[in-house]
Amino acid sequence: VPGTVTVAVDANGADLGPREVAEGAILAAAKGIRVVLYGPLAEIGDVPDGVDVVDAPVSIAKAADPAHAVRRTPESSIVQAATAVGSGSADALVSGGSTGSALAAGLFHMKRAKGIYRPALALPMPIPGAPVLLLDVGANAEVRPEHLVQFAFMGSAFAQTVMGIADPRVALLSNGEEATKGTPGVIAVHVQLTAARREVLRFVGNVEGTQVTGGAADVVVMDGFTGNVTLKVIEGVSGTLLGAIRARAASSPRAKLGGLLLRPALRGLRDEIDPEGTGGAYMLGLRRLGVVAHGRFTRRGFARAIEVAAQGVTEDVIGRTHAALEAAGVLRQPSEPEASVTPS
Amino acid sequence: VPGTVTVAVDANGADLGPREVAEGAILAAAKGIRVVLYGPLAEIGDVPDGVDVVDAPVSIAKAADPAHAVRRTPESSIVQAATAVGSGSADALVSGGSTGSALAAGLFHMKRAKGIYRPALALPMPIPGAPVLLLDVGANAEVRPEHLVQFAFMGSAFAQTVMGIADPRVALLSNGEEATKGTPGVIAVHVQLTAARREVLRFVGNVEGTQVTGGAADVVVMDGFTGNVTLKVIEGVSGTLLGAIRARAASSPRAKLGGLLLRPALRGLRDEIDPEGTGGAYMLGLRRLGVVAHGRFTRRGFARAIEVAAQGVTEDVIGRTHAALEAAGVLRQPSEPEASVTPS
Repeated sequence: VPGTVTVAVDANGADLGPREVAEGAILAAAKGIRVVLYGPLAEIGDVPDGVDVVDAPVSIAKAADPAHAVRRTPESSIVQAATAVGSGSADALVSGGSTGSALAAGLFHMKRAKGIYRPALALPMPIPGAPVLLLDVGANAEVRPEHLVQFAFMGSAFAQTVMGIADPRVALLSNGEEATKGTPGVIAVHVQLTAARREVLRFVGNVEGTQVTGGAADVVVMDGFTGNVTLKVIEGVSGTLLGAIRARAASSPRAKLGGLLLRPALRGLRDEIDPEGTGGAYMLGLRRLGVVAHGRFTRRGFARAIEVAAQGVTEDVIGRTHAALEAAGVLRQPSEPEASVTPS
Repeated sequence: VPGTVTVAVDANGADLGPREVAEGAILAAAKGIRVVLYGPLAEIGDVPDGVDVVDAPVSIAKAADPAHAVRRTPESSIVQAATAVGSGSADALVSGGSTGSALAAGLFHMKRAKGIYRPALALPMPIPGAPVLLLDVGANAEVRPEHLVQFAFMGSAFAQTVMGIADPRVALLSNGEEATKGTPGVIAVHVQLTAARREVLRFVGNVEGTQVTGGAADVVVMDGFTGNVTLKVIEGVSGTLLGAIRARAASSPRAKLGGLLLRPALRGLRDEIDPEGTGGAYMLGLRRLGVVAHGRFTRRGFARAIEVAAQGVTEDVIGRTHAALEAAGVLRQPSEPEASVTPS
């Protein structure tokens, strides 16, 4: 029942300001989600029933050292929102601010889930005809093989519960399809994922960069350095290519007319690759779900982020992720040393 | 004087067959380059003066283990061509076959240049308005910081001598622009490149994935795993996006007319991003220059690969690379242990 879900939302850090985040919260609340906004009351203004506001004007969205800022600024909006989720007074976190401060606040105040080495940042990419979940896209610049193995199960559980893909195809990004391709770490992960029982993971092997946007898999696993580069190369190439096409479509009267006639057909494509439609990036591997909306989002994107966070709670993404990791026998054992909790 | 340059060309491995490579050789020979083709005489057929053919029907372009195949198959076309370059009877190598066998044959028979840890594969990307050289795009899945430092100078020298960029801007790919972003290895490289004297290197700092195709740098340095992924993500996204636009442009009579009117304007863009225009990928860091053309190339692409190889010889890319590395004090010292010569 979505009506019982409470989402704590950090209203600071959005390019369009806290009021735009509040408008998104209002849209989400209209669908029966309870929203608590943490941000500057003076800028947020009036909100209807179903949305609560906690006055938290201090923002650390632009902090150079997010981990340090989180420790030193308990009164900041993101720390208050994450603390509310960590204490159980809210069920999930949404941040319209920086990824760094959301990750740091999530780690410190929502804590890693039991048996998880490292949280990962997962991004559903809106590819025409072939949406794909990429993880990790930036939480961990360096990983060990056991981290990537967990990411595969975390991504699979998320694709099932939140993206509605019943039996997601999970792939490992490498520099070749063969099992022997990649760094020694990637090769070791391939071996472990191949050994996973089919009931708990549908591992389809390595994919190359060409296949990330090609529909070859529903979930693609990678370290956070490669994931950040991949995600941003996709953004960059799309922008460069569409810009070049736009420039050429303005280069002559004939081309201009052609562009004008094409525009309605291309509008559908624009909607299909709209990043606001996915709600943002997901912090997986914490005790509760966190969503980092993109700072550039409008109210529609923030509403979507809140809705998807609530859906993750209703569908029990945390519990199902834990069950999948347990069934696969890849939970961290209590005897193993703890990984560092400092995000990159 | 280009007339004095001899290029050894492996005619095996091209999708369109050895005759297509020979046609490219004929085009290049018409510009005064001496070409020696290694491949199956029966398939190559007649060639005019200026092109010599050495009958070498054995191909290892599809070998699963290229290093092993190179050692075991001295009669193969790529090994014969690389041996000719290594012995000095030809000045540069062009391969229309697989990257793996060209790299392995280059390492074994053309040898690493003095003071070079690892050769790198460098690819000039034809980005509209902002061509950029990426390296390493796949020779080394794992690198040490000193390898990446050398790649920066190798790429800079190549951009000067072959791409004609007088003072190339060299950047380091990372998951953020700040000097503190990246893996520990990337951070160490950033420090070393920042310390390089301005006369020998124009280091412009880190770039993110969004900027690879954005004109922020002329040379972007990365490890071979990330480079392979980057290059293939660019290919994949371009293909997916252009395919989606093409499908939408066929979705209604109105859109079809628009597409028809736009076509001439977009033709120029197609030429601008044509991978055949750059000749392929370059093996840098060997005692002589090697070029790996793409297996999908037509004669035009193979001709271009041969021309650019000859230009690299005329402009002394090897000597100038060595001079730049020496001036920067980043040549491997004889006392240091040799790196493995097995390509990934």
